[in-house]
Amino acid sequence: MRQVGVVGVGMIPFGRYPDRAVPDLGREAVLAALADYGGDPRRIGAAYCGSVYSGMMTGQRILRDLGLTGRPVTNVENACSSGSTAFRQAYLAIAHGEVDVALAMGVERLSRLGGGTIPLDEDDWNVQQGFVMPAIYALRARRYLDQYGWGVEALADVAVKNRGHAAHNPYAQFRDPVTREQVLASRPVAEPLTLMQCCPTGDGAAAAVLCALDAAGGGPRPVRVLASALTSGRLETGPDDITVAEITVRTAAEAYRQAGLGPDDLSLAELHDAFTISELMYYEALGLCRPGEAPRLLRDGVTRLGGRRPVNPSGGLLAKGHPLGATGMAQIVESVWQLRGAAGPRQVDGARVALTHCTGGGISGLDHGACTIHILAA
Amino acid sequence: MRQVGVVGVGMIPFGRYPDRAVPDLGREAVLAALADYGGDPRRIGAAYCGSVYSGMMTGQRILRDLGLTGRPVTNVENACSSGSTAFRQAYLAIAHGEVDVALAMGVERLSRLGGGTIPLDEDDWNVQQGFVMPAIYALRARRYLDQYGWGVEALADVAVKNRGHAAHNPYAQFRDPVTREQVLASRPVAEPLTLMQCCPTGDGAAAAVLCALDAAGGGPRPVRVLASALTSGRLETGPDDITVAEITVRTAAEAYRQAGLGPDDLSLAELHDAFTISELMYYEALGLCRPGEAPRLLRDGVTRLGGRRPVNPSGGLLAKGHPLGATGMAQIVESVWQLRGAAGPRQVDGARVALTHCTGGGISGLDHGACTIHILAA
Repeated sequence: MRQVGVVGVGMIPFGRYPDRAVPDLGREAVLAALADYGGDPRRIGAAYCGSVYSGMMTGQRILRDLGLTGRPVTNVENACSSGSTAFRQAYLAIAHGEVDVALAMGVERLSRLGGGTIPLDEDDWNVQQGFVMPAIYALRARRYLDQYGWGVEALADVAVKNRGHAAHNPYAQFRDPVTREQVLASRPVAEPLTLMQCCPTGDGAAAAVLCALDAAGGGPRPVRVLASALTSGRLETGPDDITVAEITVRTAAEAYRQAGLGPDDLSLAELHDAFTISELMYYEALGLCRPGEAPRLLRDGVTRLGGRRPVNPSGGLLAKGHPLGATGMAQIVESVWQLRGAAGPRQVDGARVALTHCTGGGISGLDHGACTIHILAA
Repeated sequence: MRQVGVVGVGMIPFGRYPDRAVPDLGREAVLAALADYGGDPRRIGAAYCGSVYSGMMTGQRILRDLGLTGRPVTNVENACSSGSTAFRQAYLAIAHGEVDVALAMGVERLSRLGGGTIPLDEDDWNVQQGFVMPAIYALRARRYLDQYGWGVEALADVAVKNRGHAAHNPYAQFRDPVTREQVLASRPVAEPLTLMQCCPTGDGAAAAVLCALDAAGGGPRPVRVLASALTSGRLETGPDDITVAEITVRTAAEAYRQAGLGPDDLSLAELHDAFTISELMYYEALGLCRPGEAPRLLRDGVTRLGGRRPVNPSGGLLAKGHPLGATGMAQIVESVWQLRGAAGPRQVDGARVALTHCTGGGISGLDHGACTIHILAA
């Protein structure tokens, strides 16, 4: 397989844009990525677009007014992993020699869908009974705290950290630092999760230009893609231990194998902190620490900016919001900025290797999720 | 690139299943394809699912209860070309050596969306003004008849032919033959198109197992995939000549190039007859005849079962219905049956090469469609 690099990235500040058309949001991100790339857009041989609720032909509509018609465009959907799946397909198209340059896009506009939890499968009887995402993660949180003897402060401190990171990120929705007390006092959503422990929805778009390293021209030095893994299957090991994110464990093993490295080699990670408990579970599933020790890792500052292995320097989903199709692509954008040393006041010192992680689905039966992990290197 | 074959196909009769869950429809088609394949389902290394309105994670939900979890599953959407895009991605995964065996699925349940034309992009001002698909194709039809001096009978005869074919297809929704007079007397939809000249919607599912020829085991003799082309761009050459399906012309050129053959080599075609005028336009765009001569080809019986080059032996969209994500996959299923000589009373004698064609989108601005063409050989 050919080596692949990211040569251009762009995104829009995540927020609420109910009055802008979805293609308009996507176009702004693509234009930013193309400007960053600086090469001839006509070199793009294929494009992939990730979205969940954008209607038909989102990728084609985005490229239409940019004059980038004619090439193969494929829209992909993998729930919360939609944007990262688009990135993966663009990566594969280059790695396998189909094209030299590919465009990956992710876009979502959730603000028109109303507030609260996002719409889910109407045929899903678990959801019909109220077993929506916050309820699922509340169960995991409750179990985790009980199993390992931590208090709710362990959860709240994830939000405190990520909101603190976002204070330095003009692309994040919520940039005001919060205290542990504020997090715990915010409105209850599903006990023990309070409002500030649940990622906001929102609107967003992000894009990346990928290029074969053997075909790269001028422009920014490519950030190399060392691994691209996608799996489906269980989100947990099942009712026996709902605190283990089984699909992430399995996908991470595949990604580390592809990259030829392990968790100790990561300079940073952008992971899927849809809820505070999620980030703790994924520390463990990604091998950053042993089961039950995630709160200690957090407390010791390891995953804070300035720590040994910052997690979610962008502010993560908890501060940026989670516009489904855009989320995974935004993780890539942040990682590229970090690996270029261009992340400004939230720069991770000496960043060399970054991991991005999305995982979604798994509402009913808990065994049909989609998890994507990418590993990028300067 | 490795050579790829189709080694198993299955579909459900298209119809109305408002009380069945989408994954249930898909599962039935996948089970049929797996039974036809006969090999070990655990050989499947990747799966792609095409759908437009099925909600999140359709492919994962279909495979969940079949126990086929763990592998990469990617859902794709390209409007009317969604199913064929899934087939193409499965093809690419094998052709490029990523996996040996892949599963392609297409599914859609439109019956719950209500009748009439399908929902479209809410931001599309053309659609808001009533410029929906039947209106677009009515303009094309009016122009075509005027430009080349044909009467409305030329349109009606497409429906007569395809309904006649469907009389032999237990998988089609409308299997009663109709006369030219009945077609023309059916309710007007958008002049000159009457009800029987517009494809019905409906629910459906279809699936195929693909395998690298160098990795094929026992089971049915593979039907080879000679070409897989996808492009985006204009559906017409624009206002100067709306009777030319520009995107199909361009995609066909690419497909014929890949396969190393031309329209004269086709034994049959399954093409995107969403409206009667569509089939006539695509005869020309695919090179089956010269501009303005499609009605003559039809009148001479060339494209009828028993003719030199039958088109839509399955009955096409006009008789089967058009459950978006399932349509392109069903064309593949029909072609495989034909190329195996297993199509029963609608068998095309001596079928050696089949072309399948889907094209969709292009509502607004007329320049963001998606067209897929596959060429299969016995």
